Amino acid sequence: MASNRIGSQTVTFSKGPRITSSYTIVGPMEGKGPYALDFDQILPDDVLGQKTPEKTERLMLEMAIEKTLQQKGTKLEDLQFLIAGDLMNQIISSTFAARTYSAPYLGIYGACSTFAQALGLGAVLLQGDFAEQVLIGTASHYQTAERQFRYPIELNVQHIASNHHTVTGAAAAILGFADQGPRITHATFGHVVDMGIKDALDMGSAMAPAAFATLTQHLKDTDRSLEDYDIVLTGDLGKQGRKMLRLLLTKEDYAGLDRLQDGGSQIYGDGQKTGAGGSGTACIAVMTLGYGLNLLKSAKAQRILVVATGALQSTVSVSQGESIPCIAHAIALEA
Amino acid sequence: MASNRIGSQTVTFSKGPRITSSYTIVGPMEGKGPYALDFDQILPDDVLGQKTPEKTERLMLEMAIEKTLQQKGTKLEDLQFLIAGDLMNQIISSTFAARTYSAPYLGIYGACSTFAQALGLGAVLLQGDFAEQVLIGTASHYQTAERQFRYPIELNVQHIASNHHTVTGAAAAILGFADQGPRITHATFGHVVDMGIKDALDMGSAMAPAAFATLTQHLKDTDRSLEDYDIVLTGDLGKQGRKMLRLLLTKEDYAGLDRLQDGGSQIYGDGQKTGAGGSGTACIAVMTLGYGLNLLKSAKAQRILVVATGALQSTVSVSQGESIPCIAHAIALEA
Repeated sequence: MASNRIGSQTVTFSKGPRITSSYTIVGPMEGKGPYALDFDQILPDDVLGQKTPEKTERLMLEMAIEKTLQQKGTKLEDLQFLIAGDLMNQIISSTFAARTYSAPYLGIYGACSTFAQALGLGAVLLQGDFAEQVLIGTASHYQTAERQFRYPIELNVQHIASNHHTVTGAAAAILGFADQGPRITHATFGHVVDMGIKDALDMGSAMAPAAFATLTQHLKDTDRSLEDYDIVLTGDLGKQGRKMLRLLLTKEDYAGLDRLQDGGSQIYGDGQKTGAGGSGTACIAVMTLGYGLNLLKSAKAQRILVVATGALQSTVSVSQGESIPCIAHAIALEA
Repeated sequence: MASNRIGSQTVTFSKGPRITSSYTIVGPMEGKGPYALDFDQILPDDVLGQKTPEKTERLMLEMAIEKTLQQKGTKLEDLQFLIAGDLMNQIISSTFAARTYSAPYLGIYGACSTFAQALGLGAVLLQGDFAEQVLIGTASHYQTAERQFRYPIELNVQHIASNHHTVTGAAAAILGFADQGPRITHATFGHVVDMGIKDALDMGSAMAPAAFATLTQHLKDTDRSLEDYDIVLTGDLGKQGRKMLRLLLTKEDYAGLDRLQDGGSQIYGDGQKTGAGGSGTACIAVMTLGYGLNLLKSAKAQRILVVATGALQSTVSVSQGESIPCIAHAIALEA
């Protein structure tokens, strides 16, 4: 077996790549939620003087990248790769942000799991001696995602209980080798799981089996239990998907379900009328780099497993009667 | 500097990862072009009994993957990754094809450069000891791309000279360590280049500067000249972009321009009314795995550099008045 692999889906990072700096930005609504204090910047509005929400989404990503670079004074020429992706068709927000930078660009797509895919690939490039520093980033915006995937917001379609609310926000991080910062120890890359669910207003139910598949495979590959993590942060299953994941784990007698948290379910407060909770590429990204990293920094957690999920349908595929293929990637972080 | 890097954008693969098997499928129109004999399968029609061209595109990709697996009797459990991408929104063709397989799936987007990005990332996973075998694949279809990016084909909009014709086809390959098959020696990952061109009917002009940037960076990083390659296969610049790349290289006094060939310009015959030539994720993929590999196998070429280009715009971005960001990734292959 290749020396950096364990089990059938997990790779390990013995050289200790770390998240050396990061920055999170959220919109006003996310800034009113219970994790407001964990984010680096809360925007006063979700327009930022731009003519379209697509331009705002891109600007947020550029701002997050810029602030991440500034934190430790990292220069562009010190970065060997930029890995980014988003929900927009042809991941155009990431590509537009990338044109400001001279680093080789790897565009990826994993819907709301994109951030974990970027974290995992970045650690691969570091561990494999292909880079010393890698920049990763993602962004999403309520208005861009709504009008692309569901309804234009002008229609004011009300959330149903199982429907997600796309997070307005952006996050970026630099991965590299340093003395400080959370270590990336494992990545379990998921395969596509499709249980036949066709309702794009219930992505949580579609994604829960993918989260279950990757989470349990990770535990098997690493010979760990849920209790080996202080927190297992899934996202964005939402309230419906979270329930289903618990059911699936209970059915198979997994212990330690108290470790489970879900970025999508938790990012908004109960009174915020956001259906099942948050989603979007930014959701698990800001919850990991904001909430998760703060727990590690303050020693409230020693070890976190992020299990980022993605519903990979397109608007055309749903209209053509297809079910929703889903995926989840898991990344283990240590203080 | 990380040990598998040379220069600012190039990584090297000293362990000798190879393309151990591959399969190419093209539509009837591509099967009437000058490279018909280089492709493994020419389809009798571009429908394959499917109700929509999107379903046909996916089926072609599944067929190409299936045939690639069959060639050496490779089992699914022997693959550690599937890397795929395509032109469809949310790379849905790749994702649907991926749901048949149990291998961890990395969805990527690089427009028509996707295939080279997959080849490079696959070699990274092998060289970095993360995998023993990686499957890569891509597909595109004239009808799906036309109706998503330009006009529904029912309108019968005529090609102008600078416009591309999306290749109907699919290609897949297994990368691994073996005694035979072309070696992947270098990958030069490109950064985004945007010279302000806004005409989606002239992608060749938009992409030529990206091809120039990556090609010249590759030569600099590797300390090679164009003459060190028997063929430098760009794609898909088309007839317009090819001309521009030659101009840019001539202006900077590069010698060896006779080594330049372009997949997009060459895949169709002169009488086929395809404007500037072929494009689409399948184009450089079938030209590399068909034409390119046959040259290496028959010892007509010892060393080929593939410079795959991508125009990364979305339909929304063009409508919003944005210019076309472009990219190119270069992969060096040796017999």
